[in-house]
Amino acid sequence: MSDLVTFGETMLRLSAPQGERLERTEELEVYVGGAESNTAIAAERLGAVSTWLSALPDSPLGRRVASELRSHGIDTEIAWTEDGRQGLYFLEHGGEPRGTNVIYDRDDAPIASVGADQFDPTVFEDARLFYTSGITPALSEQARDTTYHLLQGAREAGLRTAMDVNYRSKLWTPEEANATLTKLFPALDVLFVAIRDAREVLGYEGNPTELANHLIAEYDLQTVVVTRGEHGALAIHDGVVHEHDVYEAETYDPIGTGDAFVGAFLARRLSGDDVGRALEYAAATASYKRTIAGDVASVTKEEVEALIESGAEDVSR
Amino acid sequence: MSDLVTFGETMLRLSAPQGERLERTEELEVYVGGAESNTAIAAERLGAVSTWLSALPDSPLGRRVASELRSHGIDTEIAWTEDGRQGLYFLEHGGEPRGTNVIYDRDDAPIASVGADQFDPTVFEDARLFYTSGITPALSEQARDTTYHLLQGAREAGLRTAMDVNYRSKLWTPEEANATLTKLFPALDVLFVAIRDAREVLGYEGNPTELANHLIAEYDLQTVVVTRGEHGALAIHDGVVHEHDVYEAETYDPIGTGDAFVGAFLARRLSGDDVGRALEYAAATASYKRTIAGDVASVTKEEVEALIESGAEDVSR
Amino acid sequence: MSDLVTFGETMLRLSAPQGERLERTEELEVYVGGAESNTAIAAERLGAVSTWLSALPDSPLGRRVASELRSHGIDTEIAWTEDGRQGLYFLEHGGEPRGTNVIYDRDDAPIASVGADQFDPTVFEDARLFYTSGITPALSEQARDTTYHLLQGAREAGLRTAMDVNYRSKLWTPEEANATLTKLFPALDVLFVAIRDAREVLGYEGNPTELANHLIAEYDLQTVVVTRGEHGALAIHDGVVHEHDVYEAETYDPIGTGDAFVGAFLARRLSGDDVGRALEYAAATASYKRTIAGDVASVTKEEVEALIESGAEDVSR
Amino acid sequence: MSDLVTFGETMLRLSAPQGERLERTEELEVYVGGAESNTAIAAERLGAVSTWLSALPDSPLGRRVASELRSHGIDTEIAWTEDGRQGLYFLEHGGEPRGTNVIYDRDDAPIASVGADQFDPTVFEDARLFYTSGITPALSEQARDTTYHLLQGAREAGLRTAMDVNYRSKLWTPEEANATLTKLFPALDVLFVAIRDAREVLGYEGNPTELANHLIAEYDLQTVVVTRGEHGALAIHDGVVHEHDVYEAETYDPIGTGDAFVGAFLARRLSGDDVGRALEYAAATASYKRTIAGDVASVTKEEVEALIESGAEDVSR
Amino acid sequence: MSDLVTFGETMLRLSAPQGERLERTEELEVYVGGAESNTAIAAERLGAVSTWLSALPDSPLGRRVASELRSHGIDTEIAWTEDGRQGLYFLEHGGEPRGTNVIYDRDDAPIASVGADQFDPTVFEDARLFYTSGITPALSEQARDTTYHLLQGAREAGLRTAMDVNYRSKLWTPEEANATLTKLFPALDVLFVAIRDAREVLGYEGNPTELANHLIAEYDLQTVVVTRGEHGALAIHDGVVHEHDVYEAETYDPIGTGDAFVGAFLARRLSGDDVGRALEYAAATASYKRTIAGDVASVTKEEVEALIESGAEDVSR
Amino acid sequence: MSDLVTFGETMLRLSAPQGERLERTEELEVYVGGAESNTAIAAERLGAVSTWLSALPDSPLGRRVASELRSHGIDTEIAWTEDGRQGLYFLEHGGEPRGTNVIYDRDDAPIASVGADQFDPTVFEDARLFYTSGITPALSEQARDTTYHLLQGAREAGLRTAMDVNYRSKLWTPEEANATLTKLFPALDVLFVAIRDAREVLGYEGNPTELANHLIAEYDLQTVVVTRGEHGALAIHDGVVHEHDVYEAETYDPIGTGDAFVGAFLARRLSGDDVGRALEYAAATASYKRTIAGDVASVTKEEVEALIESGAEDVSR
Repeated sequence: MSDLVTFGETMLRLSAPQGERLERTEELEVYVGGAESNTAIAAERLGAVSTWLSALPDSPLGRRVASELRSHGIDTEIAWTEDGRQGLYFLEHGGEPRGTNVIYDRDDAPIASVGADQFDPTVFEDARLFYTSGITPALSEQARDTTYHLLQGAREAGLRTAMDVNYRSKLWTPEEANATLTKLFPALDVLFVAIRDAREVLGYEGNPTELANHLIAEYDLQTVVVTRGEHGALAIHDGVVHEHDVYEAETYDPIGTGDAFVGAFLARRLSGDDVGRALEYAAATASYKRTIAGDVASVTKEEVEALIESGAEDVSR
Repeated sequence: MSDLVTFGETMLRLSAPQGERLERTEELEVYVGGAESNTAIAAERLGAVSTWLSALPDSPLGRRVASELRSHGIDTEIAWTEDGRQGLYFLEHGGEPRGTNVIYDRDDAPIASVGADQFDPTVFEDARLFYTSGITPALSEQARDTTYHLLQGAREAGLRTAMDVNYRSKLWTPEEANATLTKLFPALDVLFVAIRDAREVLGYEGNPTELANHLIAEYDLQTVVVTRGEHGALAIHDGVVHEHDVYEAETYDPIGTGDAFVGAFLARRLSGDDVGRALEYAAATASYKRTIAGDVASVTKEEVEALIESGAEDVSR
Repeated sequence: MSDLVTFGETMLRLSAPQGERLERTEELEVYVGGAESNTAIAAERLGAVSTWLSALPDSPLGRRVASELRSHGIDTEIAWTEDGRQGLYFLEHGGEPRGTNVIYDRDDAPIASVGADQFDPTVFEDARLFYTSGITPALSEQARDTTYHLLQGAREAGLRTAMDVNYRSKLWTPEEANATLTKLFPALDVLFVAIRDAREVLGYEGNPTELANHLIAEYDLQTVVVTRGEHGALAIHDGVVHEHDVYEAETYDPIGTGDAFVGAFLARRLSGDDVGRALEYAAATASYKRTIAGDVASVTKEEVEALIESGAEDVSR
Repeated sequence: MSDLVTFGETMLRLSAPQGERLERTEELEVYVGGAESNTAIAAERLGAVSTWLSALPDSPLGRRVASELRSHGIDTEIAWTEDGRQGLYFLEHGGEPRGTNVIYDRDDAPIASVGADQFDPTVFEDARLFYTSGITPALSEQARDTTYHLLQGAREAGLRTAMDVNYRSKLWTPEEANATLTKLFPALDVLFVAIRDAREVLGYEGNPTELANHLIAEYDLQTVVVTRGEHGALAIHDGVVHEHDVYEAETYDPIGTGDAFVGAFLARRLSGDDVGRALEYAAATASYKRTIAGDVASVTKEEVEALIESGAEDVSR
Repeated sequence: MSDLVTFGETMLRLSAPQGERLERTEELEVYVGGAESNTAIAAERLGAVSTWLSALPDSPLGRRVASELRSHGIDTEIAWTEDGRQGLYFLEHGGEPRGTNVIYDRDDAPIASVGADQFDPTVFEDARLFYTSGITPALSEQARDTTYHLLQGAREAGLRTAMDVNYRSKLWTPEEANATLTKLFPALDVLFVAIRDAREVLGYEGNPTELANHLIAEYDLQTVVVTRGEHGALAIHDGVVHEHDVYEAETYDPIGTGDAFVGAFLARRLSGDDVGRALEYAAATASYKRTIAGDVASVTKEEVEALIESGAEDVSR
Repeated sequence: MSDLVTFGETMLRLSAPQGERLERTEELEVYVGGAESNTAIAAERLGAVSTWLSALPDSPLGRRVASELRSHGIDTEIAWTEDGRQGLYFLEHGGEPRGTNVIYDRDDAPIASVGADQFDPTVFEDARLFYTSGITPALSEQARDTTYHLLQGAREAGLRTAMDVNYRSKLWTPEEANATLTKLFPALDVLFVAIRDAREVLGYEGNPTELANHLIAEYDLQTVVVTRGEHGALAIHDGVVHEHDVYEAETYDPIGTGDAFVGAFLARRLSGDDVGRALEYAAATASYKRTIAGDVASVTKEEVEALIESGAEDVSR
């Protein structure tokens, strides 16, 4: 009886402490992160009841992931497996010019071989929205099929559907991504896409408004949200363009900013807010996230609303 | 739709690191602990579906407690309050002769003023067992009343009821404890009592068997479990005496050992195991707990069963 | 035989590490802080001999506070109590927009019920200046009375007196603060007030100079120092206006900046420096404080003087 | 120009801190360990010049392994690969009954596909002894072939050869191990075997002496060392039986104890010590290792000799 | 106006964390320790008012030492120097057979060149007992002279005098120690000596009673206390022999155990307790110290008395 | 058979954690740093085979230094000594105005008394470049002589020679530095000098180009590199002027930036790059270093080249 159902992989993130290098560190900090669970948590914190579907190995590491997600109050529907390993990623943060660097170590994770039929068929009952990211179908052929079947199943059960393109060059080429994702887009109601991905993967030219209108027209989408990094975001819904700047933030940890944005947007849409208002929450939640260690936006709705009210928005435009 | 419903206070525990003194430490480790939530977690891990009823302040500290409990998979039914402070306790471990020392800082916590009517009345629906400890009625007059009403409500809803005496000399005198607890005993089916408490609070003489038989007779109890520290435990149920030694353990953190024992016992009884088998699980879970930092028995059923099978039981008897 | 005697509450501060949230942290860093002890330490380090009057629980936590203060060389005159709890505050730092957030947990601390007669009556002998902040009378009615009696006692013993308004909205309303503080002002020689507090609590309009002159006139004060955040500070003494900019600082921990300012100012005045020179020390000490973890300005007089000489003052004016 | 050349996999070990569980920890300690590199380091520290042959991914994690090994002074001859992942293992220590638990995550590591021809053919020049463990041929069919070819190559180059059976039930069955290892034994001069492995994998009955004599006879070995856990070790060489007790140790970290034993034994044999003297060094180094965090015996020859001289040997026999 | 005045060197101790080796550690824990300041702190905590005389470099490291000592409430009378370096010692703890190992790095510390005339001559006014250890005269010729002059000065000012032989083989030979110390003994009232030092340095044979009587006779001492490690201690005073066993302790950190013993003994003697009672406090404080990280016995008098009352004394005799 | 041979002192660096003061910290982070070994490591990482000549005490602390350097792959040629202490320096980082402060504790380190004849005379065989810094001859008269003899020896063996002036005011006066260094300059081919040192120590006026030309003319140098802090660097070689800006960096740890610059420059010159290209590598490596904790540029050649290609150069000019 969730508002939001998400599907995707969640990894353990092992990070070198501030200033240190992965090559030299004697200690790794453990976090839990994945695009869809990050999104589910942000949505839960902004008022939606969320469920996360996934597969995990039945090991201390797999249980670590599940318990962290549950601690944020989201429901978990997990296909536990005897085989497969817990997906990991190693992360090193550095000031510029070093920046943030990621090493994926996620091969052979259970999600790569999970089938849609391994989940409780009643999971979509009474739910209202299904979400996954463009990372999931990049994980394996099976993951692609499962994504496809879950999207279909969600629609058949009367749910709306949403996806964030989230292109990851370490997982596939732009051409592969394009071929797969464009087959999934017709099953979507809401699409989030970074302008950089729209150009690199989808091959769209033009400004964000043109790009969003293109997507709406080509795939019969209800809402398209184009994010533009520090230049804010733009949404088109019912033919109306909504824009919002980013809120200035001192970044402690940039990972998960986009997922915080998506989760807050979806939660507020589910609660009945209009697209413009949902964009405000999304931008404020994303900004708050940047100050917090780890992948997850551990915020409260009250904090996000206080930020919106204080108007600390970057008015550089 | 839980097997087990528990009610009681859960505190943040702030511990000095190994070797350090509270008076000098520059760092405190944060744990979450309370007799009833420790019990609920142990029960959940041994196979029961558990719910924890309590009151918490709506603050980062209160949410810290809730999220930790949820991470273990238990359901929470919380009366969130604007007023009141998060109960704390400070802890220092030392080798002998220093031992473990606790400073309670739990006055004015929300549980002291919560009423039974602040909880969802359907919480007992489909549940099978209600548990609280003798700590809860020691917290305030209101807490005593609420304990009483929840015990009555549970019985009316058809649940079995259980309590661990858990006498805390920093909260009340033996006489106060006696006066209050003996009024609650008639509402119980299962009673756990440490032999030391039976003597100090209840005034019973005699060996554990005599003591358990006394309690069964006097309060019409179904099961009485008498724990005897390192000398193992004894249970009487249906007139049959069951005994079990402790499993030897190298103690890293003794806090929560008794709760682990109770939680495992109740979970296995709820699953249909007989009293003797439940005592085995209880003893093994308690032993495992002693090796783990914090108040909570983060074990798996498989680990506990492996210990039972390996027979590492202390056969000093 | 101190130069400076201060009176007020000192708490344990429990802070989440950098980047972490109180709601999620597994570790708290322990610091010791209170407006008057912070001030006493800054004064001691800038050359004054300082004493701190207060009440503490006779517990490891209370002793923690006392030992930390003594480590900086200040004398302590403490009413140790069997009852009452150690005042705490929880702190979380975040980059913008998260900022610094504080949860007070200081109810029922011994200072709230301490009487002026509980201190050694000779404490003012040979002393030259008494200082407290506007936080102390906000703690309880008794604390207000005690503040009043100590101020009177200090004057009768021939000491000068000083106060920093230090309005705390989590303790009382502007109206309550106004009613209480304006009764204490006539007993003062030196008043420090942030311009924001002057407006919100005292209801003064006008620029800092007008405001300071108003206060001098209304309460027959000898010196008024108006602090203006990043815009520097202004003092009026003997009809002469002194101004000083802030020294630029990369802020690691902003807590205690104002107390460092006050402590340095008072120490240098006690040593015979004129108001303008004292403002330089105050500004430099405050700036140095911002780079140091914790509430306390662990500086040396040499460091502060090196900063003054290097002229790293922000010359934006 | 090494005395000792070893071949095998070295992993990153990620350990939960003392008292913590892998399922709950927020921090992992990073160590580097592998049977053959542990052995090479112990040998180097006891006086041998050692080289380690292996394959590693050219990533920060692979470089972490190499740099740690070099820090102990051993030479590395590494086949760096673009593909493959750094082998990991997760470790949790607990007091009894929890004990030490290991999760291997070493599939697809480069060593599983490295060929003997990928190493510099001159690596055996001037070397005197080649060592690998029974873990290496368990990793893959290719690893088995490479082990075989390196053993042959070593012998052709005039080196002695040594192996420790080191049976790992998480890698293969006793039958598989038996089938593979008994094909390698004829290429050996020196064999180390734990009595438990001798029984489980090799199927030998009888006491250690009988067992060692069997092995010498069957595989024409020069030296066989049978280790018996806390009951010490026995070696047969030139028909002479040498025995040595363990030195008592308070175990902080048991991992790598056997490798420390082997490394010290081989180093002292290479330096010309007789088998009895080498057993003394082996036992003392192994004992010292148990007190040190991590997989590696960071000892000095002087420390080991001081232990031998102090005679702290457990003389329970 | 102290009860007890002590003189000696206090170092910064830099320790490798548990399990780690100095050769490999990436982190050092900072403690403050020196025989005489350890003794002064134990005495202060057991009820004596204590002063510590010494010399320190005027640097952050020197100030670190002073502030730590003051935090325990002792007064410091320090000759601050521009030259000289802060004495350090590096420490590594390991389980057996590794044990505790110390590297001194204390050459050129200011105490080695401080003269008795650099201290405030009024420091002995109203004081009752002067204490130093046999380490101080080992530091330099000047330190020996200063020790001699302070002992004489103390006696002239009417103080009793006490010394613990505390032989350190890393500082001087038994012959050197003998030559120096026996010249100082005639200036003493109370002498503490470990039986091992009595034999190695003083050349005494015989049992502890004979040894103590010898010393009393030869140097006209009032009290001699002979410590015998785990076999307890023996004191002779006014011809009466007092003996006391050790209290069993799980040792976390053995450093400073002897100083805790001496400080408690002296404090209780100063408070009027007889020698037998003072031995009880000494033994209990020493036992408590073993459970605490660092060199210092951070105990309360109440804790020590609770231990004495609980009678947890090892009654192996 | 190294490309680069360096000679100089390497110390243990003991740093207070971020935000903390040396005077108050309870923990010190251990790093290893010295101008010449920092340079050797940077060179090794940029492609040169490097050897470091020095003297160290044969103690855990001395071995700590050696093992850290070896972990980066450089060869060590060490004169191990029984006497002498490991050189240390204590470091505290703070934001402005606190800045970075260093306390040297390096007196009596073995390098101060090592002679050139204590090194293996074959160390220059097949080597191509010898490097030391202007710190080394400041350490002692003997160190000055040894520096001189190694420079001569290197030239006689056919090596090029290089030096960075690296003036340290805590070691000697500008006049002393001038007198010593100008005697060494004639033995150099390549000289690095910060413009500030050129003015303070060498007394040169004029712009960087004039200054470099002066040096070339006066000492018959082949290459002079003048570094100008945030204003980039200028090199003159064969009469051609090369300039390069700094790459912008968020500084986590500034120590070792200059050594990273020198090491990269030399490595690329040794590999055949021209001076302009070598300056690019030097600037990029220095920038990368600023983001990394510790004294050492733990970079890869690929990272440095990626930075050069991305053109993130500060184009403020």
